[in-house]
Amino acid sequence: MSKPNSQTAFLSESASVDKLSTTPLANSKKIYIRGSREDIRVAMREVSQSPTHQQDGHLEENPAVRIYDTSGPYTDPNIAIDVRKGLAPLRHNWIDERDDCEELAGFSSDYTQHRAQHIGLEALRFHTTRKPLRAKAGKSVTQLHYAKQGIITPEMEYIAIRENLALEEAAIEEASKSQHPGENFGANTPKFITPEFVRSEVAAGRAVIPANINHPESEPMIIGRNFLVKINANIGNSAVTSSIEEEVEKLVWSTRWGGDTVMDLSTGKNIHETREWIVRNSPVPIGTVPIYQALEKVDGIAENLSWEVFRDTLIEQAEQGVDYFTIHAGVLLRYVPMTAKRVTGIVSRGGSIMAKWCLAHHKENFLYTHFEEICEIMKAYDVTFSLGDGLRPGSIADANDEAQFAELRTLGELTKIAWKHDVQVFIEGPGHVPMHMVKENMDEQLKHCHEAPFYTLGPLVTDISPGYDHFSSGIGAAMIGWYGCAMLCYVTPKEHLGLPNRDDVKEGIITYKIAAHAADLAKGHPASQIRDNALSKARFEFRWEDQFNLSLDPDRAREFHDETLPKESAKVAHFCSMCGPKFCSMKITQEVRDYAAQNPESLTSPETHFANTGMEEMAEKFKANGSEIYQEV
Amino acid sequence: MSKPNSQTAFLSESASVDKLSTTPLANSKKIYIRGSREDIRVAMREVSQSPTHQQDGHLEENPAVRIYDTSGPYTDPNIAIDVRKGLAPLRHNWIDERDDCEELAGFSSDYTQHRAQHIGLEALRFHTTRKPLRAKAGKSVTQLHYAKQGIITPEMEYIAIRENLALEEAAIEEASKSQHPGENFGANTPKFITPEFVRSEVAAGRAVIPANINHPESEPMIIGRNFLVKINANIGNSAVTSSIEEEVEKLVWSTRWGGDTVMDLSTGKNIHETREWIVRNSPVPIGTVPIYQALEKVDGIAENLSWEVFRDTLIEQAEQGVDYFTIHAGVLLRYVPMTAKRVTGIVSRGGSIMAKWCLAHHKENFLYTHFEEICEIMKAYDVTFSLGDGLRPGSIADANDEAQFAELRTLGELTKIAWKHDVQVFIEGPGHVPMHMVKENMDEQLKHCHEAPFYTLGPLVTDISPGYDHFSSGIGAAMIGWYGCAMLCYVTPKEHLGLPNRDDVKEGIITYKIAAHAADLAKGHPASQIRDNALSKARFEFRWEDQFNLSLDPDRAREFHDETLPKESAKVAHFCSMCGPKFCSMKITQEVRDYAAQNPESLTSPETHFANTGMEEMAEKFKANGSEIYQEV
Repeated sequence: MSKPNSQTAFLSESASVDKLSTTPLANSKKIYIRGSREDIRVAMREVSQSPTHQQDGHLEENPAVRIYDTSGPYTDPNIAIDVRKGLAPLRHNWIDERDDCEELAGFSSDYTQHRAQHIGLEALRFHTTRKPLRAKAGKSVTQLHYAKQGIITPEMEYIAIRENLALEEAAIEEASKSQHPGENFGANTPKFITPEFVRSEVAAGRAVIPANINHPESEPMIIGRNFLVKINANIGNSAVTSSIEEEVEKLVWSTRWGGDTVMDLSTGKNIHETREWIVRNSPVPIGTVPIYQALEKVDGIAENLSWEVFRDTLIEQAEQGVDYFTIHAGVLLRYVPMTAKRVTGIVSRGGSIMAKWCLAHHKENFLYTHFEEICEIMKAYDVTFSLGDGLRPGSIADANDEAQFAELRTLGELTKIAWKHDVQVFIEGPGHVPMHMVKENMDEQLKHCHEAPFYTLGPLVTDISPGYDHFSSGIGAAMIGWYGCAMLCYVTPKEHLGLPNRDDVKEGIITYKIAAHAADLAKGHPASQIRDNALSKARFEFRWEDQFNLSLDPDRAREFHDETLPKESAKVAHFCSMCGPKFCSMKITQEVRDYAAQNPESLTSPETHFANTGMEEMAEKFKANGSEIYQEV
Repeated sequence: MSKPNSQTAFLSESASVDKLSTTPLANSKKIYIRGSREDIRVAMREVSQSPTHQQDGHLEENPAVRIYDTSGPYTDPNIAIDVRKGLAPLRHNWIDERDDCEELAGFSSDYTQHRAQHIGLEALRFHTTRKPLRAKAGKSVTQLHYAKQGIITPEMEYIAIRENLALEEAAIEEASKSQHPGENFGANTPKFITPEFVRSEVAAGRAVIPANINHPESEPMIIGRNFLVKINANIGNSAVTSSIEEEVEKLVWSTRWGGDTVMDLSTGKNIHETREWIVRNSPVPIGTVPIYQALEKVDGIAENLSWEVFRDTLIEQAEQGVDYFTIHAGVLLRYVPMTAKRVTGIVSRGGSIMAKWCLAHHKENFLYTHFEEICEIMKAYDVTFSLGDGLRPGSIADANDEAQFAELRTLGELTKIAWKHDVQVFIEGPGHVPMHMVKENMDEQLKHCHEAPFYTLGPLVTDISPGYDHFSSGIGAAMIGWYGCAMLCYVTPKEHLGLPNRDDVKEGIITYKIAAHAADLAKGHPASQIRDNALSKARFEFRWEDQFNLSLDPDRAREFHDETLPKESAKVAHFCSMCGPKFCSMKITQEVRDYAAQNPESLTSPETHFANTGMEEMAEKFKANGSEIYQEV
């Protein structure tokens, strides 16, 4: 499929893999769960634990914990990574055997052809002999189309196993017994996810599987409110900074820490070439905002945008394998004046570009007027719509206003049109919203967008947190995830201030993993509490290493512990630095348990115990005396 | 009152003030608002702003923003700080003129006298000639007592001005017009806080003013759900690490970033001396958990604790000026077995100590049996109860269980007893709770504890975030603050792993300031949105410096901005590093506004505008045609 080229200047020979983080996380092993056929092999991360030393000297085994894994082949030491070749095309056969698409002789986009002939770009180019795929005439190749036909694709089966955390039905049933029942799993949501359930959710439009036929390298995943809450990480260069190499590193780094999808928001140089490197090396779906690149093509002058430039950009990116497109088709001419009196006007880049275009030409948004043609293109490659919220509020003051909800209702209309074409859809949401107004966003979205999945940026619950906006947005993200939002777009600490570096990307991702997991717990997603319970048990038993390894960021957990107690012996100590050896509540609780074990009468039910000690009488007396306090017994 | 001593080894001459952060925050000025009398001078921080450059060349002034300020004299360059002397006794006259307490000849605690005679401690000691105050026989000196008598104390008036952010009634009325109405302000809550309202809330037990008569240095503040949400920062040494000097630095550092109260949780050496330095230098109320020190006095052996040791510790700390005591009087013998089958047993240090004591002696908790004697002591100094949640859940699995709620109901009983003695009370809460179970905590607390203020530690909404527990607890904190929790106890990134350093303390505080402020917005606390609106307006107008200065952490905001665009010129640039000069939504929105200004017809109401452009007809046609999409106009 591809040809390594020693002249490639993008990555030097020595640096190519070294710069990527490819080692497995601590004590983690990549495992593969086979589905109904040989080539359905669902990758999971398995964290093994040490045994518990029981009082009587026996060892109690602690089961390995399986964790949803977005890092793809990068954390499998058995797979040699070569970014110049890209990842193996996992889905190639599945796409091929459906026999509904064709390999084109060349790329359809004028721009792609132009770039291919540009000799100066040779050093930047990802070298491949790959030919693009496209649906055969009259065929639909979307997962929504298959789902509506009652077809369970290998992608759907892969997802069912993945969403079950590769557990058997009995194990999930067992886990759910010690899990708090959640709130937002509907009556029709099974604890154990079957491939048929995946199909039915996709068919109903309640979930999407972003899976461009030109991105066979991606591992199937699903976005929908009856599944695990997902997170997106944004990467991408800008006119001010960043190189292709950095962007590929950020991609790998993002998936390492749990990014379920990655959006390439590049607005700088060589967007086309950067994207090719990203898609070929990505185990997760890639999203873009095509209007960004279209604007670059017209030298940043919004008025000069045209349907023709945009159309060619869609085809260019669809044939590269982009899995979802943010399209700001809901920014209608008549909504633009609604934003004039806002505190922060229009803050979406795509939204402001389209608003400017609409006003300059006094015409309706061409993304809206050409919406059906856009559907035709996306259907031919199975690109999913992320209907952009170009009029989202950019401040607490502007939350839930007329402009925002007018656009949302239009996105609902467009959803129906996309579905008519069998194109998958999810809907973007805000932004900046105070806590008590977050739920209205979810309720309105469900109502007006016919239950298409919601995908929000936070929302930030206050504006006064520059430098910490990952956190203020994480609060809103956790809440809206609980209410039913299917995917949360991360925010980094640099939001509103600068471009995120590697550390910022990780900080943003971990923050959003917390929000998403907290939402899974609150929704009652089956078996989501297994990891919490295992980590807490390890904590309570002073199995420090297990506690680190089960955490979202084992490296930081270990580093923070070692800052105060660096010695290896401290990691088997039955105390920690917070309280020291004599003063530990966990240790004391152990002693309470020991005491209880030696004095079994103290472990009888509270009522019995109370009665036995004669204290119930005293309590009655106490109440009878008008709640005068006990005298010491 | 105190005597500087050049032999003091605690702080070297040169280092004494240098190590403390005493400079005002960027562009901030300390202002004092006079109340009804000369000596009521409420300290606030005022952030000035630069003007807006309007299209027509005019300058629009942007008003200075007043910010609630916990940093006391440290950020006033006109006040010379000498930690050896301590802060000025702001409340001295108010306490004195009430004429209900007396200066004792010496300290009442045996332990205090013992420490005073210990020559080896000379170098560690805070040198003072201060004599302790205590209520005269038969007198009550608590703010609750005064409130019940209908007396508005200077403390209450100070608080009213402070809670109004030093704004006039008209300014608050004006601000509330552009603020989203919140949800948790009751019908009886005025927008403008009067001293009488403060009094009535304290009298009803719905709010507390922690203000020990031996801590006259503290600036009055209030904890109650009809006021701004407060946060507490924990400091304190442990057997493993930390010096007195570090703890004083952490105190000053905590108040600099917004800690409303500080708990000294020292469990290591020289707890008595450390505390004296902290109290004498603290502009905010100080809380402690006296059982920690009592345990040190019996060499860490819980069984050896006794009422006598504890009683002397209470008096020792009350005469030093501790403003509130965490007392774990609700950990009853009969509740202990309820914890045996938990995943994480008892995780509260105080709770586990008392549980161990109860089981070892098979007696009821002596804090419970001596509760009325404790009330008598606290009443004599106006120490407020923080009734400890010794049985709070330490993991998601243990949330909202029988043990937790049984203790909560007992805390409700104790609340009534304390109130009978005119002792102020607030109630501590969890811990670890999944999002959908957070509200039940608030509801149960209000119900069983008669609306006494709630003070929670987070709660953490997942267990899997070691290294990021400030954030996972911040989610729960923001939510429970919205639901009505009055004070949030911060959690640092080191929670569960190690002791927080200076950076961790700041990270924890800023995280909790975000949670508290988000809760204020959601509750609709009057005028809380002023700062958000000002910052967002500054952001939108590219007034970078104003954006930094209005943020919770101006230093970090500026640093993050400068990482990508370090030049001074970038701080007046009408773009930022995220998108570069050509590609900025804010810039484009400005252009949209400019366009709208030049083409006023576009700014007519959407309906009119739509009709004018003839598009309404088209929309009708569109709908008539079954929502087929527009052709381009």
